[in-house]
Amino acid sequence: MTLRRIGITLGDPGGVGPEIVFKALAGDYKLPKAEYVIFGSAPVLRAEEKALGIHFDFGSGKPRPTRLSGSLTFHEIPGSLRTVTKGAPTAANGRESFLYFQAAVDEARKGNLQAIVTTPISKSSWALAGVPWKGHTDYLSRFYRGVIMGFWSDKLKLALLSHHVSLKDALKKIKKESLQKFFISLDRSLKKVRPGKFTFMVAGLNPHAGEDGLMGREEVEEVGPAVEEARRQGISISGPYPPDVVFRSALGQSDTFVIALYHDQGLIPFKLLAFASGVNVSLGLPFIRTSPDHGTAFDIAGKDRADPHSLVEAIKLAATLSC
Amino acid sequence: MTLRRIGITLGDPGGVGPEIVFKALAGDYKLPKAEYVIFGSAPVLRAEEKALGIHFDFGSGKPRPTRLSGSLTFHEIPGSLRTVTKGAPTAANGRESFLYFQAAVDEARKGNLQAIVTTPISKSSWALAGVPWKGHTDYLSRFYRGVIMGFWSDKLKLALLSHHVSLKDALKKIKKESLQKFFISLDRSLKKVRPGKFTFMVAGLNPHAGEDGLMGREEVEEVGPAVEEARRQGISISGPYPPDVVFRSALGQSDTFVIALYHDQGLIPFKLLAFASGVNVSLGLPFIRTSPDHGTAFDIAGKDRADPHSLVEAIKLAATLSC
Repeated sequence: MTLRRIGITLGDPGGVGPEIVFKALAGDYKLPKAEYVIFGSAPVLRAEEKALGIHFDFGSGKPRPTRLSGSLTFHEIPGSLRTVTKGAPTAANGRESFLYFQAAVDEARKGNLQAIVTTPISKSSWALAGVPWKGHTDYLSRFYRGVIMGFWSDKLKLALLSHHVSLKDALKKIKKESLQKFFISLDRSLKKVRPGKFTFMVAGLNPHAGEDGLMGREEVEEVGPAVEEARRQGISISGPYPPDVVFRSALGQSDTFVIALYHDQGLIPFKLLAFASGVNVSLGLPFIRTSPDHGTAFDIAGKDRADPHSLVEAIKLAATLSC
Repeated sequence: MTLRRIGITLGDPGGVGPEIVFKALAGDYKLPKAEYVIFGSAPVLRAEEKALGIHFDFGSGKPRPTRLSGSLTFHEIPGSLRTVTKGAPTAANGRESFLYFQAAVDEARKGNLQAIVTTPISKSSWALAGVPWKGHTDYLSRFYRGVIMGFWSDKLKLALLSHHVSLKDALKKIKKESLQKFFISLDRSLKKVRPGKFTFMVAGLNPHAGEDGLMGREEVEEVGPAVEEARRQGISISGPYPPDVVFRSALGQSDTFVIALYHDQGLIPFKLLAFASGVNVSLGLPFIRTSPDHGTAFDIAGKDRADPHSLVEAIKLAATLSC
């Protein structure tokens, strides 16, 4: 059996990405056995080595000082960066982090990686660099239209019908047909990694899930019929449930995914319940992609204060789902 | 100094209301010293006495077996109910619970009560009885247009800009002028009970609070300017904050109220954080009104399984805010 290959991108050089990658790989975290490949550029890697006093012996088979089991290699992206500016968005950092991610996605699309773990990029850095995508998920949508933003923790598992659009625009997406497609695509992508494991609970849109149409008709006209149809097609799904009840009901049920109808409906409870241990996961792709559930944290970047915990969880989940 | 008078309604006779009132008053809860007045009808009271084996000696000055400090009297509402039907909405129960509440509000409006603690009514029972109001808050709106639905716990305090309307209609209420009025009215009503104590954090509407207008313009055009104006008027208020961050930021800060822009934005986190200990409080009234944060619980009504904890908290809060 060949080992799974997991790519890890360094993220925005000005953020905490490089630091948490070093800390996760060099720490005492019992990461799963895999061929780990870091995607980054030499100046960023060297700057971080110096800052943290950690040195990786790439490709020797015995990466030091890490207790990693498997292997660790460096996929060098020849960038134009000479020195690393920490703590704020810059065009140069945006260009770098985009190239790292682009290279990792290329490798995954060719089948050379079973999973990609991304560390935080800065959307502002990407914009400054003229990168025409808003972020990781947006870039992935270029190749995979049905990519689904999911969130994963022991306490709560979550899939978002829509994510980075205004609430008004999110409401427009709540239509029977698109809901059905979403349910089917989500179910299919999870069945690929864990057949028969997951059931779905769908949140309603309105207070008390509309109370039979008294406070909004979406549950009666769109969400309910879509759930019914998905069930007829053999998907283990129920709802719509009152939004202020469904997350509590699903709490700690590790085989249940809550389907949230808009960004904050899902992210408000997820960030409350799983702040440090939550993992972002992209579903509906032919490979696995996970990332820690936090941003570049520019305010603490370069200060040796970043906590690699969420990245460690993201690496573990990527490994779990890609075997 | 005269003791504060606190009215307690028995709620829907078919729900857990009467049971939790008996358990709260007869239990070992160290309720604050007050003149407690139960609003209900004799058949409901007698049925509950029999079911629970608890007998109150009203008006004797020494209510038994309760360890209440203060006094306990019964404000009898002559209803038409003969026997009590438990576990489902009925017109008779709807009529009863409405009359209890109506009588308590009458007394409070006359200045004879400083606070009302309501136990759960059934909106369906009220509808069956032809009561033209949707619930407690709706009835109060008849007399006090600016009544605000608030939620109170040690972990989170919350005020809702809108409550029982569809999400689409809730969006329409997010206008600079109405937000300003809301901020001022909320601040005024809390200053009456605790001058200078509370600060407000306003949640945004869109993901990441719109990211400077990239994902929705409401923060830039409506919420932000309303917050600025309220601050100019001396209110301690800030925001709009990203909705998936603000509740975490306010967590455990007992002097902070989060202002949620729609029902579930506030109730999803509140019900996760303060399920059994949360209290519903109506603000913007000349008296205090609190209630436990749960419904009639028809499924366990009449089975001696109801937990009076949230009602006890509601009574304590009513006493605290009315002194």
